[in-house]
Amino acid sequence: MSFFQSRWVDIPDGVTEAEDGLLPKGFRAAGIACGVKPGGVPDLALIVSDVPGTTSAARFSRSGALSAPALLTRDDAKLWELRAVVANSGNANAATGATGMNAARAMRSAAAQAAGVDDHQVAVASTGVIGVPLPLERVMEGLAAIGPELRAQGGAEAAEAIRTTDAFPKQVTLDVALAAGTVRLSIQAKGAGMISPNFATLLVFIQTDAGLDADEADLLLSVVTKRSFDRISVDGQLSTSDTIVLQASGASGVRIEPRTDDERVFGEALDAALRQIALLVARDGEGARRVGRVVVKGGDQHGVERVAHAVADSPLVKTALYGGDPNWGRIIQAVGAALPMGTGGGKHAPLQVDISIEDIVVCVNGAFVDYDAEALAAAVQRDEVEYEVVLPGDGHEAARYFSDLGHEYVTINAEYTT
Amino acid sequence: MSFFQSRWVDIPDGVTEAEDGLLPKGFRAAGIACGVKPGGVPDLALIVSDVPGTTSAARFSRSGALSAPALLTRDDAKLWELRAVVANSGNANAATGATGMNAARAMRSAAAQAAGVDDHQVAVASTGVIGVPLPLERVMEGLAAIGPELRAQGGAEAAEAIRTTDAFPKQVTLDVALAAGTVRLSIQAKGAGMISPNFATLLVFIQTDAGLDADEADLLLSVVTKRSFDRISVDGQLSTSDTIVLQASGASGVRIEPRTDDERVFGEALDAALRQIALLVARDGEGARRVGRVVVKGGDQHGVERVAHAVADSPLVKTALYGGDPNWGRIIQAVGAALPMGTGGGKHAPLQVDISIEDIVVCVNGAFVDYDAEALAAAVQRDEVEYEVVLPGDGHEAARYFSDLGHEYVTINAEYTT
Repeated sequence: MSFFQSRWVDIPDGVTEAEDGLLPKGFRAAGIACGVKPGGVPDLALIVSDVPGTTSAARFSRSGALSAPALLTRDDAKLWELRAVVANSGNANAATGATGMNAARAMRSAAAQAAGVDDHQVAVASTGVIGVPLPLERVMEGLAAIGPELRAQGGAEAAEAIRTTDAFPKQVTLDVALAAGTVRLSIQAKGAGMISPNFATLLVFIQTDAGLDADEADLLLSVVTKRSFDRISVDGQLSTSDTIVLQASGASGVRIEPRTDDERVFGEALDAALRQIALLVARDGEGARRVGRVVVKGGDQHGVERVAHAVADSPLVKTALYGGDPNWGRIIQAVGAALPMGTGGGKHAPLQVDISIEDIVVCVNGAFVDYDAEALAAAVQRDEVEYEVVLPGDGHEAARYFSDLGHEYVTINAEYTT
Repeated sequence: MSFFQSRWVDIPDGVTEAEDGLLPKGFRAAGIACGVKPGGVPDLALIVSDVPGTTSAARFSRSGALSAPALLTRDDAKLWELRAVVANSGNANAATGATGMNAARAMRSAAAQAAGVDDHQVAVASTGVIGVPLPLERVMEGLAAIGPELRAQGGAEAAEAIRTTDAFPKQVTLDVALAAGTVRLSIQAKGAGMISPNFATLLVFIQTDAGLDADEADLLLSVVTKRSFDRISVDGQLSTSDTIVLQASGASGVRIEPRTDDERVFGEALDAALRQIALLVARDGEGARRVGRVVVKGGDQHGVERVAHAVADSPLVKTALYGGDPNWGRIIQAVGAALPMGTGGGKHAPLQVDISIEDIVVCVNGAFVDYDAEALAAAVQRDEVEYEVVLPGDGHEAARYFSDLGHEYVTINAEYTT
């Protein structure tokens, strides 16, 4: 299997990788160039379920400056029976006021027509530059032409068409063997942030031919989002446009009933796939070289979460990760900053914290210990680097994934506008 | 005057710049090389007041992982009558446990001896790499030799000796004309962070020959710190070692009485000087090219502060500042992230926010407006770039200063360890 690359994701039993781009039964997709992006590269995707009873669930950015398409979809779509997803890259249609809302509505109608479904069954997503009017005519021309391009193998093209600063497209098709029969699961995603949907829009489109109640789809999406994308995001601090859509066509004839073993197995497959996608987003990281994972343990949930955030978000830790630098002093600095005097440690002594990097203990009770510097230097050169921080007390744990901060990030972001 | 460089700092009436390195009456200082840093560069500073009645005040990092010298000084010094400040660069003596505490205590005794004062009248500060034992012998040898180097013009050498990744030393001597007579004020500082004392230790040593009650000195230091360094920091998220010390020798014979015009004038001079120092820290910014200021106005203090932080701390805004890129979409993204749905804007519409860059209005009510793109592109090429964000309501305001994020930051921090 080539998709599950991270040692931090176990491949669940019964999961096998299917042909790239192949969609679950009942779905067709296409990705074409409509001219929003320069150079004739793909920038418009349409994903359609041809099955009338399709169920769905969706999640959106919590940003107070939500983009027009995210706002329209969140507030004016039947999120429990979405049949189609339309998305463009190159322009986020955000901070575009009433004009932008009208453009999103027009885009939705054209997509509904191409898909042969109702307007309210279409999710609309746009990603790219903010505050520039969407070149609506090009999108409309594209949508007028996209219908004949829809095909059962179109997942890869759709994933390609939603890329912005992504260094590589992110998609997978998996077969999941359940007791009731095998179902297919496909995902197309985009997102490349230094760490976080805060810094680059995250779009994730998920299809399955399993049959799922809409309520159950919603519950499932909540759980797996928390374990994947929420772990690479800063709590609730999302981009203007983040959108996650799960659609279940039921066309496999296999129904997943609530609270069954099949639901658990399917949930685990979805969980593993989304965690790997989240890690690909961190890995892409606008030029990232390495991905870090920080696991924080201690006696207080709020404390372990604060520390995990602080370490994962620290530019000093990120640049050290980039440089393959075993500078654990930056970890303890982040820990101390996250837990000011009197909040996590004692009032009168430095924090009693233990730190390990790749299982090499470097700090015990807040003070350095002797360690094999050569082994540590070699360990932090790997593609994935694991940090463990142990605070006083026990029973609570938080994990975060994060990418490094390097020259490529600066180059991309100092030069990327329009 | 060459010190007050920023258009964001008005030079108060009666303030003139004195010779570099000249200390107020009663003070002597020295900066020498003791071998903590390689290459024989200055790395040990001592600042001494020879006046027995000297008053003082101090502030420390709130980090839960406070360094040994900061902890020792905070908890075991007479902060209201500090006579001497000893500081080394090259090693932070942080995360060094009991060994580190003993080293800080030894360093304090040696400095007390060199200064001819009591141990409890010495503030100790160390800055540099974290988690590596302080090479105490070298510091002790340095302190044994530093006494004869102390001189009334030694402020510049002291400022030089406390540098770490600072691209330039930060110090100034000012004369302040009060009704009761002229007093002198000198400052030596170090700090170079992408934005924040979170990311690089801040040391600030302030001397005056005015006479001040210790209580008054403490109050004054509170006020001016809030208006300067707290505005370039993430709230309470400081490094392991940040230390600010104000000493007043009274040797000018001019006493500043509480709640007088003289106190106001002196306070304004100190305020302007520290604000300019804070801007120099932001400007240094480990390779920064430009400094930004964001001013946020609106109806809710918590909201304007959240937004000011979010804009100033956003790596996307910082890279755009570095690139001289007028990409205001990143500003609105940061605003939306800081004010999630339902917290700052309406529940059902994107946030009503106005944005200007260098007085050019780019966004009104959350949507783009036509603006002179050429003028804007030119404006963001300047050394200082001003952003204004206006949220609904009025009566509240927050300002933050921030440096950009560029290749030099990555280079310094990916390669800087030991």
